[in-house]
Amino acid sequence: MWENSLTKLLEVKYPIIQAPMAGGVTTSELVAAVSNSGGLGMIGAGYLSPSQLRQQIHEIRELTSSNFGVNLFVPSTYHVDEDKINNAKSVLIPLQEELGIEGNPSLPSFEEDLKKFHEQVDIIIEEKIPVCSFTFGLPSAEITAKLKQNTIILIGTATTVQETKLNEEAGMDAVVVQGMEAGGHRGTFLGGDQQSLIGLMSLLPQATDSVRIPIIAAGGIMDGRGVMAAKCLGALAVQMGTAFLVCEESGANKLHKQAILEAEEDQTVLTKAFSGKMARGINNRFIEKHEQMEDHLPDYPVQNELTKAIRKASAAKGNHEYMSLWSGQSPRLARNITVSKLIGRIISEAEKLQTKL
Amino acid sequence: MWENSLTKLLEVKYPIIQAPMAGGVTTSELVAAVSNSGGLGMIGAGYLSPSQLRQQIHEIRELTSSNFGVNLFVPSTYHVDEDKINNAKSVLIPLQEELGIEGNPSLPSFEEDLKKFHEQVDIIIEEKIPVCSFTFGLPSAEITAKLKQNTIILIGTATTVQETKLNEEAGMDAVVVQGMEAGGHRGTFLGGDQQSLIGLMSLLPQATDSVRIPIIAAGGIMDGRGVMAAKCLGALAVQMGTAFLVCEESGANKLHKQAILEAEEDQTVLTKAFSGKMARGINNRFIEKHEQMEDHLPDYPVQNELTKAIRKASAAKGNHEYMSLWSGQSPRLARNITVSKLIGRIISEAEKLQTKL
Repeated sequence: MWENSLTKLLEVKYPIIQAPMAGGVTTSELVAAVSNSGGLGMIGAGYLSPSQLRQQIHEIRELTSSNFGVNLFVPSTYHVDEDKINNAKSVLIPLQEELGIEGNPSLPSFEEDLKKFHEQVDIIIEEKIPVCSFTFGLPSAEITAKLKQNTIILIGTATTVQETKLNEEAGMDAVVVQGMEAGGHRGTFLGGDQQSLIGLMSLLPQATDSVRIPIIAAGGIMDGRGVMAAKCLGALAVQMGTAFLVCEESGANKLHKQAILEAEEDQTVLTKAFSGKMARGINNRFIEKHEQMEDHLPDYPVQNELTKAIRKASAAKGNHEYMSLWSGQSPRLARNITVSKLIGRIISEAEKLQTKL
Repeated sequence: MWENSLTKLLEVKYPIIQAPMAGGVTTSELVAAVSNSGGLGMIGAGYLSPSQLRQQIHEIRELTSSNFGVNLFVPSTYHVDEDKINNAKSVLIPLQEELGIEGNPSLPSFEEDLKKFHEQVDIIIEEKIPVCSFTFGLPSAEITAKLKQNTIILIGTATTVQETKLNEEAGMDAVVVQGMEAGGHRGTFLGGDQQSLIGLMSLLPQATDSVRIPIIAAGGIMDGRGVMAAKCLGALAVQMGTAFLVCEESGANKLHKQAILEAEEDQTVLTKAFSGKMARGINNRFIEKHEQMEDHLPDYPVQNELTKAIRKASAAKGNHEYMSLWSGQSPRLARNITVSKLIGRIISEAEKLQTKL
């Protein structure tokens, strides 16, 4: 029942990919547990330095002999706008004072980000990682060619039909199609943040009709019902974030897990307040303080750097009001269990459902 | 494969309900064709006078002996805010001049709307209509009791889990759960327009977990894939709007049908510009002209009355720029075919899919 061209390509038993959540969520224990349970574990390497990435790959290899993958953020140019930075600071400076944060945040450097990206790609090749996925844009033709020469399977991210087609044209072997339900950062790269908010029920069949490469459904999927629905709509696999984030092996802060476990489906919002890029998380005071200025904040990753110390200090103080509590729209379905139990439940629920259809 | 407690209750062959689209879309031919093809046709009676409603019921009875239903708008109180009316007029008066419209629009009357609603309910009882559905809120306990005494099946509308539960508590026999993908007016009645935009992939399983009454999935469903996906997520039937709106038997303006048939999935937007109530349609100049003032427009149905003549004149002149081009997020799946062909395709696609799962 579960074998298809994509599960064969990825060499996984089940068509379940753990979403590569950056920022400490995808611990080696989480990634390995997913791969050991028949899914595909993914390192969210976006914020990892090259040496951290290499170290984590080695750690995971100690924990599993199954395939796992790495996700990278594709750097893109951005504008450093002093007026927008001052706007942002008008909210952030009082929060820094409230939290007792000293010193000024540094600004990102595109050149350094690009250098880091290239180094991450080289590590993936050197370490013979079988699967590399991308978010926030498409890799250059040069990088794509280099990875393909090393027979690494490439997976892109899309939020519209047009972006899905561009992933195919760029040579991706598969594409994650992210519905508006998804938690965390939007993968939108063609612009039109609002227009790119398509519900998965609409987006999946329209995307699968438009390309030949396998489609991986992402957004709001938490259980066997979602997996079977995605299959009906033409996806060959699902990518789940929130469901794995609340698992015991995940490195998400316990306040973050708790917030999801207590949340209802209408308590997440889309905001640029944390990073300058649209992302879905549980509403809190930090987001509310930025409500009127969402369109006047610095670009990603400038805003991300500006808010970093605040998010960190808030977590350290046990205060979830200034943390980014990323979550998809299905928090009522979240369960704080082990990865093996989660995947076991999903598969048995899906198989039961199949016989009932 | 298709029989379940809801299809038995509604006495239909297939779990397919034609969404009750008000404003001339649900012609007698459309409603009868859906019921004759094994689904449940619905009169969108929101804007019909009691005598028009009675006449249409008689017309449909000439065309089918199968069950069909009627949908009513539940009137709710609203605020007549002169400042907001003046805001609206600042955009509308130049458009009236451009279109050569003379005279001032009249304002709605809550008392008249309520009187009309009660008369519509009486007609449904007198005519022994088997199914009555509601949008924009829940009927009073008195009306619910009266309809139930006459063994009329009641269907409500919800856009969140909380609204789904309230429908059950109010005694509805089933509830349409409307995802953010849906075209036309949102059924949201608890407020929180933005928070109530939940993708169907997330909303359906969370809603089905929360109530015992049958759930009908609405939003972005156009084909057999969507029907099967909704089934996986726990729905016992689907309600489809856009897919029937473009059918040959539908009374939608040909410019409206054409706009949907040519649209892409990211070209619809949510707007209050046409009616004062949030609705999804294909973006056009009328919506763009209201972009900065969405939050400063008069309540429904005040704005609806103010824009009525403009929408009508725009259609008469063959100009789709000032018409409400309601559409869900799956316009790429729309086909201008007959109802019988549409339902036949859906069922055969769903049955093929089922054997493949």
